Amino acid sequence: MDSATTLAIAKQEGYECYALSFRYGQCHDAELQAAKRLASHFNAKLQRVIDIDLSGIMDSALTNSDIAIPERPGTGIPVTYVPARNTVFLSIALAWAEVIEAQDIFIGVNAVDYSGYPDCRPEYISAFQKMANLATKAGVEGGDVRINTPLIDLSKAEIIKIGMDLGLDFAWTVSCYQADQQGLACGKCDACRLRRSGFESAGVLDNTRYING
Amino acid sequence: MDSATTLAIAKQEGYECYALSFRYGQCHDAELQAAKRLASHFNAKLQRVIDIDLSGIMDSALTNSDIAIPERPGTGIPVTYVPARNTVFLSIALAWAEVIEAQDIFIGVNAVDYSGYPDCRPEYISAFQKMANLATKAGVEGGDVRINTPLIDLSKAEIIKIGMDLGLDFAWTVSCYQADQQGLACGKCDACRLRRSGFESAGVLDNTRYING
Repeated sequence: MDSATTLAIAKQEGYECYALSFRYGQCHDAELQAAKRLASHFNAKLQRVIDIDLSGIMDSALTNSDIAIPERPGTGIPVTYVPARNTVFLSIALAWAEVIEAQDIFIGVNAVDYSGYPDCRPEYISAFQKMANLATKAGVEGGDVRINTPLIDLSKAEIIKIGMDLGLDFAWTVSCYQADQQGLACGKCDACRLRRSGFESAGVLDNTRYING
Repeated sequence: MDSATTLAIAKQEGYECYALSFRYGQCHDAELQAAKRLASHFNAKLQRVIDIDLSGIMDSALTNSDIAIPERPGTGIPVTYVPARNTVFLSIALAWAEVIEAQDIFIGVNAVDYSGYPDCRPEYISAFQKMANLATKAGVEGGDVRINTPLIDLSKAEIIKIGMDLGLDFAWTVSCYQADQQGLACGKCDACRLRRSGFESAGVLDNTRYING
């Protein structure tokens, strides 16, 4: 939902988009199938899926099926937090940006609904951008890499409204932490709850495909 | 040579070491075999090799055998520069550090001999460390991640002397950009030239195993 809306915004702003997804040991790959379809819908110039096997060093409810996905909101940093995930993803995006000589990297992080994730905060994004400008050829040559986070201050309801205005059919997106292979959602995990209440707040029909109807 | 000396230094300083290597599309994997042997020699608690296929997005003489390894020093950023490589490696190290609750990450970057690489400069390392402390649970909870670069200001000759003092047999290390499967060095590329002149400056016998004797 967030990545797809971010892509729709970048496209709307006139960027030629290179879409990057990761197979990093998720328990399901329904979101990768969804990413491919959405990249094609928004005419991404290229779509790449990077394989990175972090299962040996990471431990999260999203990558280890022995850790239960919680069905109630908790406090603090959620067990679905994947250590340094956005840092790893942004670093690889930075490598690709350098290769294709792109200055703008877009990421759908959101500080409102996921305030428990350290790597979704504006101060983190700002520090990553500073580092990125020192890390690369562009930085040495006086270039400028920007990390764009158009959703960072938006509520889920606002994201849904913007996405729909930009022609995004959210039935194609997968938010559920434990979606099945067809991309059907459990309706119970944190991600499903946030998504459902986003549709309610936006006053929009929730056309998510749930496992139980 | 640099990574091995860095490991020897960390061990000497009393750290329990977790050794991390990457199969990222290098044209040869002799350095991975060397890393395994060295991690074992220095009693690393764990050694992990992370597979990450960046060949689709990266382009460097180190990962693309169609780009010739230069046999003369050039000016500017070398063609052997791999875009954002240290950022990707450090990000994955940061993920592992978070999982094992380590505060210290060691990396053998060196600003003297490789001044053409943007991601070997002290200002880059410092920016990465700031970002790392905002990216992670430890950062949110007031922890402190340190990126240690014990070699950053040393010449190759100084690195060789320190390594030897710490019991490192450099014949086990692979520097060559185009080593063969047995780890034999070409003797001609930038990395071989720096290594050879390091041994000369240190006044130490160069026991590197070269392809032509």
